Amino acid sequence: MRLYNTKTKPMKALQFTGNKTFDLQDVDLQPVAPGEVRLKVAYCGVCGTDVHIYHGAMAQRLTLPQVIGHEVSAEIDVVGEGVSGWQVGDRVTVRPLKPGQAMAVDNGVRHIGQNLKFIGIDTPGGMQQYWNVPANTLHRLPDNLPLTIGAMVEPLAVACHDVRLGEVKAGENVVIIGGGPIGMLIALVARQKGANVLISEVNEARLQLAESMGLATVNPKDTDLVAHVENFTKGAMADVVFEVSGVQAGVTTMTQLPRVRGRIVMVAIHAEPKAVDLFRFFWRELKLIGARVYEPEDFEEAIALAASEASTPGTLPLGALITQISPLADAKSVFETIDNNPAGMKYLLQCDL
Amino acid sequence: MRLYNTKTKPMKALQFTGNKTFDLQDVDLQPVAPGEVRLKVAYCGVCGTDVHIYHGAMAQRLTLPQVIGHEVSAEIDVVGEGVSGWQVGDRVTVRPLKPGQAMAVDNGVRHIGQNLKFIGIDTPGGMQQYWNVPANTLHRLPDNLPLTIGAMVEPLAVACHDVRLGEVKAGENVVIIGGGPIGMLIALVARQKGANVLISEVNEARLQLAESMGLATVNPKDTDLVAHVENFTKGAMADVVFEVSGVQAGVTTMTQLPRVRGRIVMVAIHAEPKAVDLFRFFWRELKLIGARVYEPEDFEEAIALAASEASTPGTLPLGALITQISPLADAKSVFETIDNNPAGMKYLLQCDL
Repeated sequence: MRLYNTKTKPMKALQFTGNKTFDLQDVDLQPVAPGEVRLKVAYCGVCGTDVHIYHGAMAQRLTLPQVIGHEVSAEIDVVGEGVSGWQVGDRVTVRPLKPGQAMAVDNGVRHIGQNLKFIGIDTPGGMQQYWNVPANTLHRLPDNLPLTIGAMVEPLAVACHDVRLGEVKAGENVVIIGGGPIGMLIALVARQKGANVLISEVNEARLQLAESMGLATVNPKDTDLVAHVENFTKGAMADVVFEVSGVQAGVTTMTQLPRVRGRIVMVAIHAEPKAVDLFRFFWRELKLIGARVYEPEDFEEAIALAASEASTPGTLPLGALITQISPLADAKSVFETIDNNPAGMKYLLQCDL
Repeated sequence: MRLYNTKTKPMKALQFTGNKTFDLQDVDLQPVAPGEVRLKVAYCGVCGTDVHIYHGAMAQRLTLPQVIGHEVSAEIDVVGEGVSGWQVGDRVTVRPLKPGQAMAVDNGVRHIGQNLKFIGIDTPGGMQQYWNVPANTLHRLPDNLPLTIGAMVEPLAVACHDVRLGEVKAGENVVIIGGGPIGMLIALVARQKGANVLISEVNEARLQLAESMGLATVNPKDTDLVAHVENFTKGAMADVVFEVSGVQAGVTTMTQLPRVRGRIVMVAIHAEPKAVDLFRFFWRELKLIGARVYEPEDFEEAIALAASEASTPGTLPLGALITQISPLADAKSVFETIDNNPAGMKYLLQCDL
């Protein structure tokens, strides 16, 4: 494939121009500022957030045109002034957060402060050949980790964060409502912690994928979920429930599954208020725990888990979650495919063609 | 007052007979079973739950007629077989819980297990002259604690439980939504922990009462509550919010007030699902913590706090929360008064007339 044989500028960048439209433009390389590196992007995954942007749902937040994308594997192409610890050729992924100035309301929590900028939404993202990012966003990828899998580290770090905030422990019963990419990754991470994991998902193809990875599944359209969880847990019910569905049915179910003092982790983005059974929180002393993005330790854990697959195959089969790898030039058709394939999981755009 | 001068049976019991009706009956003393004590009841407070029962809201759960009431101070009248550590004349209050057989779903939590019976709802309560209870429900009242205040220990133990589960620490900013009896008690306990406390309440008389106890207040009908909390906390917003209002407006507000990783304690009983801003839980990594009744340590703390008022007046002025003390025979008019006086706080029924 020779996408760029007529280029007059040195690199290609996929500009999102609004209204479900992308424009693959020839652009100049950006100068590398002090504290930054320039990355030669290998792969960039398509996140649910990117799909929301594609649909126009985040129009207020974006300045168009914008290069989006934040699930990246790359090699360092240029090391900027004042950057130490990194060399040209290092294989990396990016934790796409710029915390900004700390505020009192932040409560000392750096990864979701009020002045946070999300790289790939608020500033240009990874769907381009070369990408300048602050060096403090980098995490090193082990040599044995394929760069396709490297692009899965960012969503895996989300799952590590969710599981950590949910305080999942070995032997606990965990139910995941919603078996999309993040739900599936949460299931894999929770299983790796020694939990008994059950995925509730309505799409049969996703259920089959989960089963192929050795995960227990249930389709709540066919089966009484509460009764199923009661049976699955021998009456103990769930220690931890992850709400990853983003729909009212999931919210209605989430309070019915935990045992006394069980935890519910709110992973999904519910744009509108939902009807919640607050009585159940009172009655069983449940906890709801919001979890957003990740902290540096979640990236480190995600990388270690991803790398562990080489020595213990099958525990974290991230490759099984990759539905399709397509050249950056095919972005439009990839987004259309995502819209039309509810069974699909992770789509990667190859950026170094 | 000579209520009982014509009695043919040895004691009076206030029977709730449904449909907002009470019947003060002459009844026999119940034999004291092994493991029980017979109490001579001094005072029995009227709980919001009792008012719900009066309105017929818990008709499915109650077997009528039933003696209700569970906020009691008393002296031991008879010590049953096999009971050690208690003597006739001991001044006590009652933790009105019978845990029942432990189940897997209980998760080892004894105070809200699936087989819990609540004394005063599921079994006869304290609105009678003599009351038989299991000896393991008793907590000793100090000699210097008036029996009127002793009847406030049970709701104070609720507040201690709520504050403990909310993990309130010295210096934290605490906002309480709803300044009824439990909200006010939470405020006093949180203040005693060293927190900066603000009560949000719509009733002016309750606000004045809170102010008379030295508590900061705000009326959200007159004032932008979010802006007020921002000002009150110098931009830090709330570390802990207690939702004690039980109404949608409180639920809508509760997610707007906490800082990043702030906690919301669900104290109120929301009989119907409410619209909850789940996005805010995600965005700020908030926690919602359900809290119900109390554990033995909460009763011990409540008694110690109530007793501390003698040495440090003003810190826990429980007497200021007692709106009215009335003889048991006047129960019907007391319940009618409660219905018609939104400013009222705690009403006690005197049972030893």
